[in-house]
This record gives sequence, C-alpha cells and structure tokens, in this order.
Amino acid sequence: MTPAQSDLIAQTRAALGEKAVVTDPADIAPWLNDWRGRYHGQAAAILAPDSTEGVQTIVQSAHALGVALVPQGGNTSMVGGATPPADGSALILSTRRLNRIRAIDPAAGLAVVEAGVILEHLHAAAEAEGMRFPLTLGARGSATIGGLASTNAGGTQVLRFGTMRALVAGIEAVLPDGTLHQGLSPLKKDNRGYDLKELLVGAEGTLGIITAATLRLVPVAQDVATGWIGVASPADALKILRALEARSGDAIESFELVPKLALDLVLKHIPGTRAPLAGSHPWLVLVDYAGADARASLETLLQGVLEEGLAADAVVAANETQATAFWRLRDSISEAERAEGPTMAHDISVAVDQMPDFMVRAAARVEAAFPGVKATGFGHLGDGNVHFHVNAPAGVDADIWRREVGEPASHLVYDLVNAAGGSISAEHGIGQMKRDELERLSSPARMGALRAIKRAFDPGELMNPGKLVTLAPTLPSK
Amino acid sequence: MTPAQSDLIAQTRAALGEKAVVTDPADIAPWLNDWRGRYHGQAAAILAPDSTEGVQTIVQSAHALGVALVPQGGNTSMVGGATPPADGSALILSTRRLNRIRAIDPAAGLAVVEAGVILEHLHAAAEAEGMRFPLTLGARGSATIGGLASTNAGGTQVLRFGTMRALVAGIEAVLPDGTLHQGLSPLKKDNRGYDLKELLVGAEGTLGIITAATLRLVPVAQDVATGWIGVASPADALKILRALEARSGDAIESFELVPKLALDLVLKHIPGTRAPLAGSHPWLVLVDYAGADARASLETLLQGVLEEGLAADAVVAANETQATAFWRLRDSISEAERAEGPTMAHDISVAVDQMPDFMVRAAARVEAAFPGVKATGFGHLGDGNVHFHVNAPAGVDADIWRREVGEPASHLVYDLVNAAGGSISAEHGIGQMKRDELERLSSPARMGALRAIKRAFDPGELMNPGKLVTLAPTLPSK
Repeated sequence: MTPAQSDLIAQTRAALGEKAVVTDPADIAPWLNDWRGRYHGQAAAILAPDSTEGVQTIVQSAHALGVALVPQGGNTSMVGGATPPADGSALILSTRRLNRIRAIDPAAGLAVVEAGVILEHLHAAAEAEGMRFPLTLGARGSATIGGLASTNAGGTQVLRFGTMRALVAGIEAVLPDGTLHQGLSPLKKDNRGYDLKELLVGAEGTLGIITAATLRLVPVAQDVATGWIGVASPADALKILRALEARSGDAIESFELVPKLALDLVLKHIPGTRAPLAGSHPWLVLVDYAGADARASLETLLQGVLEEGLAADAVVAANETQATAFWRLRDSISEAERAEGPTMAHDISVAVDQMPDFMVRAAARVEAAFPGVKATGFGHLGDGNVHFHVNAPAGVDADIWRREVGEPASHLVYDLVNAAGGSISAEHGIGQMKRDELERLSSPARMGALRAIKRAFDPGELMNPGKLVTLAPTLPSK
Repeated sequence: MTPAQSDLIAQTRAALGEKAVVTDPADIAPWLNDWRGRYHGQAAAILAPDSTEGVQTIVQSAHALGVALVPQGGNTSMVGGATPPADGSALILSTRRLNRIRAIDPAAGLAVVEAGVILEHLHAAAEAEGMRFPLTLGARGSATIGGLASTNAGGTQVLRFGTMRALVAGIEAVLPDGTLHQGLSPLKKDNRGYDLKELLVGAEGTLGIITAATLRLVPVAQDVATGWIGVASPADALKILRALEARSGDAIESFELVPKLALDLVLKHIPGTRAPLAGSHPWLVLVDYAGADARASLETLLQGVLEEGLAADAVVAANETQATAFWRLRDSISEAERAEGPTMAHDISVAVDQMPDFMVRAAARVEAAFPGVKATGFGHLGDGNVHFHVNAPAGVDADIWRREVGEPASHLVYDLVNAAGGSISAEHGIGQMKRDELERLSSPARMGALRAIKRAFDPGELMNPGKLVTLAPTLPSK
C-alpha cells in the first residue's frame, strides 16, 4: 500500500465511516479476479460509498492524492474491465451500496436507478409496476446498472429496444476531478454541445464514474411466443428476419442464430437437452414474438416462411416450459463449447446485411489457415453481431493450443472484421483484453481521438487505469 | 487577409484547382451573414473542396498554418453557428461541392450521403427508391446533411424517428489535425471505446468537419392522415398523445401543439388561412397519422378522445390540400408573430411529462415579470420541446423593447428552464447566440467537460472558432 493510498483510505473512513472501507484481504479477494479467471489484480482496499456525495468525496480525495481507482459493479466484465492492476497501484471503488431505485414512473416509462442496482432487481421492480426494463443478459443476477451503462451492454433483446445507449435517458456521474455531472433529467432533445451522456456510456469508467441513470421502461409484453427454425444458411436466416419484421411491425424481440455445430455440442454436453426439430439443419434460429395472440401469430408467420422455402422446418413452443427449453439451448452454447475443449471467443459486428456472408467467409478463412479448428458464429444476427468462436480439435493441450493456434487465429478473425469495416467489440467493450488489438487495428484518427479524450478528462490516468486506452501507446506506432 | 490565410488560399488553389477557392467579395458576401440577419462576419475566401481528400488537404494546411476555418453547409443556422467571426480571422470551408449521394440501399434501409447534399435532394432521391429519409424541417431546401448532423437537427417528425442522432448510422469526418475518421460502416453495435460518432453529431463543426454520413431510411408511408384538435390545455394535449400512441402503435408521426394566441396571429396576418374548427379553443393540436387506412383510423382514434372528454372538437383533413392547409397554420406561426411585432424565441426542452405544467407556469411568470408581454409555447410537445415565444405588446419600438424587455425576459425563460432540469437548446444548438447563456447556466462539471473536449481536439481553436464553447471563459467564473 502506498502512503497516498493509505491517506485515501483514512480520509474515506473519516468522511464516510467504517462501512465505506473494506481492507480485510479475505473480503477483498473475490473482487480481485475477473469471473472467467483470466485476469488477476491486487488492491489494498475496496471503497464502498453509499451515496453520490460519497463517491464525490472519494474521487476528490483520490484526485488530490493521485490515487488510481477501479470502479466495480457486479464484476461480470467479459474483457477484464473491472479487474484492478496486478501491481496494486489502484484501489477498487465498489458501487454495491449505491443500490437504490430512486423512482419508477410507469406513466412516463422511466426509472431513476443507482449504479449498484443489480439488473435482475430492476427487472423485478419494474414488473411490480406493470413495466419492464427491456435489456437482459446471462449475468443479470450480478451485473449492475452502472457497469451495464458504462459498457453500453447489449444482450438478447437489443433487436427491438437497442443497447444500453438507447435505454439510458439521463445520467449522473462524478468526473475525474470530483465534480458532479447532473444529467438525470430525461430530455428527449438536448443540443447543449457535446453530449456527455453519449460519451460516458461505453467509456468503461475511464472518464468518470456513473453513479445513477434514468432508464427507459416499456410496458410488459402481454404475450410472448418462442419459435425454433431450421434454415440452410445465415443468409436465409436474415431473409426470414426481414420477412418477419415487415409482416409483424415491432413484434420480433429476439432473433438468435445457432449453428448445428453449437447445437450438437449442447446436446452432447448439457444434460436434459433435446433438439426441438426432428431433422438435421445446418443452422437454427431462435425467435421471440411479443404481441397479441403471440403463439398463433408466430405460427402463421412461420408457416409463411416455410411456404416460401426460406426455412426447412419450424416449431413454436407449446408453452412456457418448452420456450425456456429452447432458450436453454441458446444460452448453453458457451458452456458446451468449454466442456468440449478450448475455444477462442470473438464478440464482433459488421453491417447487418454483410454478416451472413462474413460468417461463411471468415469461417472458411480461419479453418483453412488453422487446419483442424472449427469456426462458427452464433447470436444476434439481427444486430449484425455474432459471437464468432474458434474451437480446438479434440485432444489438444489447452494452454499450448491457445498460445500457438488460438491467439494467431484471433488476430486473423479481428483482421477480417476490421477489413470488413466491422468492430472487434460489438457489445463486451475493450477492457484490458482487447486494448492492444484496438490499438493495432485502429486508424491514427481514432486512436488519436480516444487518447485526446482520455487525456482531457483524466490526464493522470487515475480512472480505471490500463483499460480501454492508455495515454502512452502500448504498441509501436504505425 | 493575414499572410497565413494567403498561404492557405494559395496552397488550396495549387492542390485543388481554381474551383475550390472563391475570393471575389461579391461571391463571398451572401455567406457572411446568417439568414436572419443577426450575425455579420468577414472572410477573405470560401474554400470549397469537392472531395473528402480535398477537405483533408485544406484542414492539414490550415492546421499547419494556424488558420481558422468555419464549416458551412446551407447557412441556415438559427444560432449564428455558420457565420464567420466579424474580424475576418477565419476562412469559410463550404461543403457545397461535397454533394454526392454515394449510395442508396433500400433493402438495408441505408444511404451514404456527402455533407453538402441538400435535405430536399435526399428526400427526393430516397423517394425514387421507394424509401424516405424521415427528418424534415422548414429549411429543407437549403439545409445540408453535414450541417444537420453537426447540429443534431430535429424538426416535426422527431416523435417517431428521432433527431439526426438516431438517423446517423455512421460518419466520415476530418479531424482538426487533418486525419480522417472513417466511420461510415453502419454498425448497430460497436463498443470500441468512446463513441466518436455520438461526439461529432451535435458538435457544430467545432471538433472537426463531417464529410459524409450513412443515414437510415424508412419505407415510404403508404397513407397519411392529418388531424386538427381543439383542447383545453397542454396537459390534455399530452394525455391525447399518450392515448393515441397506446392505441395506434407507432402510427403517430407528428404531434404539434399550437396556442390560440398563435393561431389568431396566423389568421390575422397570413392571407388565405382559416381555422379548421368552428369554435374557439385555448389550444390546438396538429397530428399526423401514418399507417393503413389512415383517415378512417385517425377518425376512430379522435372519436375516442372526444368521447372521453379529452378533446373539445376535432377534424381530420378530407384530402391532401386540406392537410397542407392545416400544416400551413403551424408553419406560419413565426412569420405571423414577426408581422405582429417583436418576439423573443426560445427553443427549449424539459422532460416530456413536465412540459404542460412548465409551459403554463413559465408563461405566468414571464407575463407577471414583464407586464404587457404575451408568452406562450408551440411545437413538439411529444418531444418535450416547444418554441417558447415572448411577444411584445403592440406599438413598441422593436430595438428598445428587445434590449429593455426582451433580453431580460429571455434570461428569465432560460433560468426557469434550467431550474426545471431542461435544456436551453433543444434542437437549434448553441452557435454564437447561446454560447454565453450556456456558460452562465451550466455546472462547473459540464463546462469543464466541454472545454476539456474542445481543447483535446482543437487546442488552437481553429475549427468554427467562437461557436459553442471557447477555451477561455467568456463570463466571470462562478
């Protein structure tokens, strides 16, 4: 612990009380590693204020003392975004006690929610008011609103309602100098210069700490039906989506693509799973329809695409149990892949209309370059975002394979994405995992702008240091 | 002309040819003043590149020479945002020759459009492909895509499709150091750090020059009906909007509020206008419904709100001629007000649900503070954005009234907006007109962040100098 850290801990304790400071190593330990176990950090303390003013107090002191802070919500980052540096040079600022839902206004369709509120708790609170917060993802039992906003999180319902960026109507944030940006007012139109909300959403805590957000709510879906479709190709799947959208207005809420390869692994490794359709199909689609008379409506729509020859077969879940079973197939892909062997995962996007072609082309390129691997994408086809996975052949040594094949294969995937004008991080952010790849693949204009913004807000690199972008280039300049 | 300006002109001429440089004062003159005649600038030349590379060439030279540039599209700013400084310290960079529509893809619902394309031309080009670009405003015959994106323009169709921010799927921009940000790829999900598109949209050309944008298109509306409703209050008008939205899905595309005061002035001053409804109503609403069987559907909806007592009377336009006549009433308000006497206009927003109460309260406060004036708001109620106008009593001297009553009344309006958590610029931007009011009313956090961003991108204040924010405070610090 540095003397400055020690001072910050003492000042925080004096100003905010004992509960705001955790220094017992046993209590800190669970928060030093990312949940996938890839990144391991050190921190002498967790500071846990229970109010926005408390955050301000800590950030002002940290700013004055030159102590770095790593903001942490549910610690569910996919890219090591919430793990402190390994050298102990930062303290953790946990938002866990900023856990109040300040207001829910069903008539206006808005909620004001503090950063530490867990997504699942917001879901429940909104539902109790006849509303829903229409963003969900696997980590909903741990992920917090502050982290979701700071990473512009996505998930499986982005198609209709957008990512966090579209759902955040206002934010409150403590900037790196400790000043408070009070922007919770949900203005639909506001042209007072550079949009600070848009800048802080997705900034991964590197420009300040989001302490609360005003979020949009939508009415609860009256009726939802889930379908499972067998298709010949991603291109056909996209045609089906376009047909369903054109014929149903806004009713299609999820449209997830699953390759046969992934389904087979799920059926092999996940107990109690079975294929919804009898035959074998190269690609599957999971679709959620929300609207009046959902089951009958979705059946009619799917009958239409079957008759047009866009789909080979399709079934609508007969009840909620079956719908849950369909979704379990989709949600178990990563687990099944891990059970099979090592996998390199890539959260990528290209323009929606280019994704079917990109998936086929990229898989062929990767499999040709690295004989024995299987490459395929699954996920949010309608958002132009798939999780493109490269799976090892059976029987390899995981560590050796990752180093000798997996990592070079990842570089190739990102090269292909970049050449297609796509993004190497569609929804997970950059964190520490993709920081150097971002630098390798970004134009001088983009990297210059990112660095300039970081320097403008946080010249001392005290806010989530080492994540997203560093002031000094980490790679030789191009 | 400074020696550096002279060098820039010579370098531009050498690199881009004669057509890229205008130095004849007669040709420059029309572009030195804003269209309302409030701001008067000087510029020794207009530089008019016809390609993105040309813009880069000019900006790189300007950067090296330290010459300031004022980007200009259609010169339709409402806030003096495109008028050069009065001291001749900047040259104009016109986007008028960047006038190509690079691509229209109806299937993907996207167009790639250069900055100098006039809005009306894009409307026509999209319609020729069976699509529409769903943003429109009075200046559509002059306003350009670059200016519309740089000011995050709004208009009368924001309710359903959003402002420019929601319609810009990607941008290409030349940053102040001359580097090119190539971000035209229309990625629905992209979390590669700070969102440069979101930052440049609404930056008013102070962080770089948008040279092209990828824009979202929507299918042409099959059928549109226009209604005119008499209501007792803005609160009832908002209730009607909520009812129509709940019962029609996304069919309500415009919902404009008009006070009796404004309608009366239109009927008095604009030849050939007549009131759509027989009786006298304190407030009127203009509504556009787009969807199947529009006229019958809107009639049914309006019958419903009449029966519920939310509206006093209502009529649906029998044909397009009548619909155009309804819209002419709305679009003539500013002209009618000018004919009646001096007016102070305020483009403001608060949270949508607070707007009805705010309008009534603010009008009462202003009329009490400045006896004889009439204060009222009209416009985009569903966006929480009205044009709040303070009209002078009959017979005053315009200049004296503006100085002695109008300006102080404006300060009061902005104070009230600010206290309500609203925005002093909902859709027009800051430009030079609202720059000092923005500084007066913004928190240290907001002003600090705006200045830090400006400094990060443009430390020499060479991009649209004097607009939005200056590096040195223009008001005593708080």
